[in-house]
Amino acid sequence: MDIEEFRRAGYQAIDRICDMYYAMQDSKRPVVSQAEPGYLRQALPASPPEKGEDYALIADDYQKLIVPGLTLWQHPSFFAYFPTASTFEAILGDLYATSVPNPGFNWSCSPASTELEAVVMDWSAQMLGLDPAFYNTSGVGGGVLQTTASDSALVAIVAARARYTSLHPSVALEDLVVYTTTQTHSLGAKAALVLGLACRSLPVKAEENFALRGEILKVALKEDHAKGKRPFVLVATVGTTSSGAVDRIDEIGAVVSEVPGMWMHVDAAWAGIALACPEYREFCQLDAINTYADSFCTNFHKWGLVNFDASTLWVRNRKHLTDALDITPEFLRTKHGDAGTVIDYRNWHLALGRRFRSLKVWFVLRGYGVEGFRTYIRRSIGLNETFADLVRGSSVLELVTTPSLALSVIRVSPSISKMSAQELNVLNRVFWSRVSSRPEIYLTQTDLNGVFCVRFAVGSLMTTEEHIKQAFNILTEEAEEALRLYHSTPPA
Amino acid sequence: MDIEEFRRAGYQAIDRICDMYYAMQDSKRPVVSQAEPGYLRQALPASPPEKGEDYALIADDYQKLIVPGLTLWQHPSFFAYFPTASTFEAILGDLYATSVPNPGFNWSCSPASTELEAVVMDWSAQMLGLDPAFYNTSGVGGGVLQTTASDSALVAIVAARARYTSLHPSVALEDLVVYTTTQTHSLGAKAALVLGLACRSLPVKAEENFALRGEILKVALKEDHAKGKRPFVLVATVGTTSSGAVDRIDEIGAVVSEVPGMWMHVDAAWAGIALACPEYREFCQLDAINTYADSFCTNFHKWGLVNFDASTLWVRNRKHLTDALDITPEFLRTKHGDAGTVIDYRNWHLALGRRFRSLKVWFVLRGYGVEGFRTYIRRSIGLNETFADLVRGSSVLELVTTPSLALSVIRVSPSISKMSAQELNVLNRVFWSRVSSRPEIYLTQTDLNGVFCVRFAVGSLMTTEEHIKQAFNILTEEAEEALRLYHSTPPA
Repeated sequence: MDIEEFRRAGYQAIDRICDMYYAMQDSKRPVVSQAEPGYLRQALPASPPEKGEDYALIADDYQKLIVPGLTLWQHPSFFAYFPTASTFEAILGDLYATSVPNPGFNWSCSPASTELEAVVMDWSAQMLGLDPAFYNTSGVGGGVLQTTASDSALVAIVAARARYTSLHPSVALEDLVVYTTTQTHSLGAKAALVLGLACRSLPVKAEENFALRGEILKVALKEDHAKGKRPFVLVATVGTTSSGAVDRIDEIGAVVSEVPGMWMHVDAAWAGIALACPEYREFCQLDAINTYADSFCTNFHKWGLVNFDASTLWVRNRKHLTDALDITPEFLRTKHGDAGTVIDYRNWHLALGRRFRSLKVWFVLRGYGVEGFRTYIRRSIGLNETFADLVRGSSVLELVTTPSLALSVIRVSPSISKMSAQELNVLNRVFWSRVSSRPEIYLTQTDLNGVFCVRFAVGSLMTTEEHIKQAFNILTEEAEEALRLYHSTPPA
Repeated sequence: MDIEEFRRAGYQAIDRICDMYYAMQDSKRPVVSQAEPGYLRQALPASPPEKGEDYALIADDYQKLIVPGLTLWQHPSFFAYFPTASTFEAILGDLYATSVPNPGFNWSCSPASTELEAVVMDWSAQMLGLDPAFYNTSGVGGGVLQTTASDSALVAIVAARARYTSLHPSVALEDLVVYTTTQTHSLGAKAALVLGLACRSLPVKAEENFALRGEILKVALKEDHAKGKRPFVLVATVGTTSSGAVDRIDEIGAVVSEVPGMWMHVDAAWAGIALACPEYREFCQLDAINTYADSFCTNFHKWGLVNFDASTLWVRNRKHLTDALDITPEFLRTKHGDAGTVIDYRNWHLALGRRFRSLKVWFVLRGYGVEGFRTYIRRSIGLNETFADLVRGSSVLELVTTPSLALSVIRVSPSISKMSAQELNVLNRVFWSRVSSRPEIYLTQTDLNGVFCVRFAVGSLMTTEEHIKQAFNILTEEAEEALRLYHSTPPA
């Protein structure tokens, strides 16, 4: 393909992306793909073509074969998992980034890439209200873009392990323990699995909104220390996946700070973005994060208007990252790297090469401004409040937990008859199975200390009150049908 | 930004990318950015804007502030590190991918994403001549896209550790050893660092072209086993970064296969792409890879025409990956995942979310076809041969090792006077310092068992014989100047 062919193909791609957005706006396109396993392999040849094919054919096959297999995460009726941000500003930033392949591992790979990352991380830290200790300009702490919150947690745990074992050199790896809670995202357990370390999930209670309390942590530490175990890092959460729970960072931070060398990583992959709005900072425990967190992560690619991937990780002391991750063979040495006058981001993450991710963050922060960003966050939360109010007025649905920011957790709860916890779960699995077969909305399920429930997470830029009402109506319809089915089927 | 504003902005971005490519073709733009540390922070405000800014301003700032800070890895005179692929086909594939944010962790996230990845991994395996045991259709082995070769190696080592410790449950983590050679890319040592495991670099010799031999491995294993150490994985290399060396996969594979539970990961990040051409399969030890490798990695984002990032990793047994990495909380369960009828790629890599990378690989494989792909690889190797011939005829430059595929390693070697090894290194550092100050070409340096040298790696789609000759002339000019300076300065 030559430059002029690329120009035409590029215009066409832009046009077709516009078409897709118009179709989503008009709700012509269901959110959930109806593709069945194996649909694509059957449609494609078993081998790559011997001769190059016309681009027109490839582009048309994208529309014909790929698009029907896409579930649209930016669709206005996407309420599953957490939102995956998509904005035109971010798409444009990413397009420029992909046009200048640049693995960004050293400053000298492309100075713009490292410098822009250092700047947008400071801009983002300011917008979220993080303490200046976390800014890159502090020269001590700093921020770096990772791929995902899992990656950020893994990096933080590796840094924590390096710090802990340098302070306690006689500790065996077998005795190290990663602390999470039963509500922590699987990223905590997975990081422990990857590192071959033990992981302990501390209990949290429904009546405390699934937040980890200081006392529980204290007891666990005492138990583990008595057994010769060494809990060296706690993965705390601001806004759990299941219910948006916020651990008591103030209490647990104080406890962690008493354990020599122990690290607290705060994972706020989804909810951390709400820190942009001053009115949610208390709920998200910003003061405690600023006081106690050794590292803090939030994903701009979730609720932060930046297309996947853009996970922001800040550390209070960058030396703990680079001490844990720096390897510099001759072929990676550079004049400025040797002089220590620049950041070489390869020593701040697991891999070597990295995408030029800061560009899309920069485009979004400038295009929206802090005000535009806040307006969007407040609108998401407002729409969730609308939804929660509808549920509060429902005779078949109920809220299982207090709505958290833009997330509600619901279940079918028949007011007409008394059911056991187990029966309610069975009923709700019927409900869930019906809801998940409706392609026009997308929600996901969870389990809260044995209670099966359905999550409703708001965040698409295109979602309006109409979409919320439509979703509520579908949920009501399916709840009523699930109740009818449940009562008409005699128990096995 | 609304849809029509995006259309205009998208066209503009496409036009400006075209402009950049025209400028590179005409050699109007030097390859190396001349930006100084801190240039961008000085040019940008200290805080994000309060109000959203006009997109026109942002796009213009990209040209004004970012572009001058870019070193152009797709530039025809880029001979540093290894090439980072850039094709229009891949840019278009990536543009579509970024327009449908989709974290791809489960099949059901977007069926097209997982299914296309499984297919393009099989297509790529076929093109490279890998054994069908590595195809996804085998149901046993399989392929997955990772971000980088570092990531692929880390994943392979985690799987290797899980398999080894399940076979040898009493082994302490402290006794596990990762084997690399002194010429293995830093990814081996870094993976060990991340995992908190010991790493041993086995020696390789210049007279054996820096390839690891079976005997050296045998001796090391004997030594380590005698000490109670447990080498559980060998990271072998096909095409080392420093000199393109190829370990003797046949010999070391046979040795590894004798150690119960030991794993061989073959890192062919750069050179593996040459397997597309049947005539380089023997050089790259394809038969031995197919016989012995537990996992194999090559980076399509290096020499494989696909924009960063697209690291292809194949394993002989996918169960070793998923046994090591599978965590499935309720909120990640799906109908098809529970049934085991689909691949859920989250269990094949470290993180949870992942980009829709297969799209750009598909666009490239179809756009080029196997023939077009081979033509490009052969052209890169031919251009390197042209360069090597020029060096062979030079009175001031010499080849330090036999050229490997599209990589030559050179140094200044004055035929007129006898110099010690140390003096030659001093001379070559002077040469290198001069070469690295020339913005019109970009090369990088390395150290081969104490010999300081300069690498010349060919791979840009735009490189022609003219660029090779221009580079050779600049290198000759700087070699002569380095010799003049060296001889006119009395030794300290």
